[in-house]
Amino acid sequence: MMKKLKDIGELKLIEKFMARYKVARHTIVGIGDDSAVVRMPGTKELLLFTCDTLVEGIHFPTRKISGYKIGWKALGTGLSDIAAMGGIPVSALVSLAVPAKVEEGFVNGLIRGINSLARRFNVDIVGGDTVSSPKAIVITIAVVGTVSRKKLVLRSGAKAGDKIFVTGALGGSIFKKQFNFTPRIVEAQRLVSHAKINSMIDITDGLSMDLYRLITASQVGAILYKEAIPISRDAYKTKDPLRSALCDGEDFELLITSKDERIPFNIIGEITRDRGRLVLIDKNGRIERLKLQGYEHFK
Amino acid sequence: MMKKLKDIGELKLIEKFMARYKVARHTIVGIGDDSAVVRMPGTKELLLFTCDTLVEGIHFPTRKISGYKIGWKALGTGLSDIAAMGGIPVSALVSLAVPAKVEEGFVNGLIRGINSLARRFNVDIVGGDTVSSPKAIVITIAVVGTVSRKKLVLRSGAKAGDKIFVTGALGGSIFKKQFNFTPRIVEAQRLVSHAKINSMIDITDGLSMDLYRLITASQVGAILYKEAIPISRDAYKTKDPLRSALCDGEDFELLITSKDERIPFNIIGEITRDRGRLVLIDKNGRIERLKLQGYEHFK
Repeated sequence: MMKKLKDIGELKLIEKFMARYKVARHTIVGIGDDSAVVRMPGTKELLLFTCDTLVEGIHFPTRKISGYKIGWKALGTGLSDIAAMGGIPVSALVSLAVPAKVEEGFVNGLIRGINSLARRFNVDIVGGDTVSSPKAIVITIAVVGTVSRKKLVLRSGAKAGDKIFVTGALGGSIFKKQFNFTPRIVEAQRLVSHAKINSMIDITDGLSMDLYRLITASQVGAILYKEAIPISRDAYKTKDPLRSALCDGEDFELLITSKDERIPFNIIGEITRDRGRLVLIDKNGRIERLKLQGYEHFK
Repeated sequence: MMKKLKDIGELKLIEKFMARYKVARHTIVGIGDDSAVVRMPGTKELLLFTCDTLVEGIHFPTRKISGYKIGWKALGTGLSDIAAMGGIPVSALVSLAVPAKVEEGFVNGLIRGINSLARRFNVDIVGGDTVSSPKAIVITIAVVGTVSRKKLVLRSGAKAGDKIFVTGALGGSIFKKQFNFTPRIVEAQRLVSHAKINSMIDITDGLSMDLYRLITASQVGAILYKEAIPISRDAYKTKDPLRSALCDGEDFELLITSKDERIPFNIIGEITRDRGRLVLIDKNGRIERLKLQGYEHFK
């Protein structure tokens, strides 16, 4: 019997990818951060290059979400990746695989959603590919952006003693925010222009999962202050709002670490020396190890 | 009744895309050439940015083609786009949507195919996205490349009196070449470094279709010399080899127009003043208007 993909799992597959592709000549950051960082020949500014795919029936349910919202989200995830590197998005390519049965209104909505977010952040949609698909709608948007070497922020730069900041309230994004979030490009630009940011990541798979990624990449640990985590109103619609803020995904807020306490966002914790150790501490000093439960996509 | 997509057609959809997205600030060429051309802030060299999508059941049959070949083709189409602009590819992102039932060997082959072509042309695979798909495999590869303003060649630059060149034999690519072609990066680099090239396009949808695109973009006409069209050996496996050379797609050869007759490729025709008129002339001077029949994807 051949080994089938379901036995391997998505993460494993990405790891396999990573192992094969060694970072080379022009590549400053390859797989393993929010966006790749490329030094293009003959240029001083660095190129940011990222892509994200949304699949009908996996990332969004069939016929239940408007094309506009899906278009917004498809571009938004890429813009959020660029923001998380300290960069400015410039252009995007839209690849669309659509079954013949899809309604024109849906595709129009999709294009309007993409366009509306693109205009808001001065991103040019410079092309793409439209092909038919036997069954599911698949949207891939590739985004290029620019960042100076001075402003570039990686997820691997967190230092023990850094405070951890978050740009907004977390949890319950499944109710609304996942389809109408604002990529934190403006906030990130302000941060990298005025403060020394040691590391940054956008929250796509949940605060605990993405913070875990950040501390793993940085070879540090982290403590989260239980009562300081900003919980969104939609998280209160769930049975366990704190759990929702910790584990839901697709908040698309930025998680930032810096020693500069003047940064105008909520401090929700601190970076420690304890490599890989991620804990929650409450006001009474009770410590609880965080389980890694990230966001599960719509099924 | 809502209008369904099959009533509109793929080309119409792309046109709709085009109409919505006006070329803006950073964009030198948007939709409508082989690759977008972007002026990134603070850089002198131009950025080329393209993506292509292959869908199982549309662009390749299920379980009949090895992962290696599909991986090669998926990256190759993007590299061919970069070549057709006179550019050098630098990095690529691979987005993979795969159903759980897909065999691991297929995915491994796919990655090997991509990797093998990438190494050949010093392209770094800098990341991507791996997601599950309910049914079909969908692969999107985005490629960035670089070109100097001096070497950039568009499809819209053909001039009356240009000779038309092609880099290789055409037709019958369905038998083999569509999955193992060599993107003409080296050839294109030599051309743009040593000759004045007025226009260029890669042949993806057939000589007649892509030449028609070139003359439309350039607002000129073209005459093809019937006996001069190089017909591939595989085209002779079909009932009508010349038709195959004219209309099959996925040759991934470059079509070049230039006044410089020293270019070391077959001259197959010339550019005329007759806007939009595309004809075939034989050695006896008999003229035949070309019907636009492009390559039809596997069904």
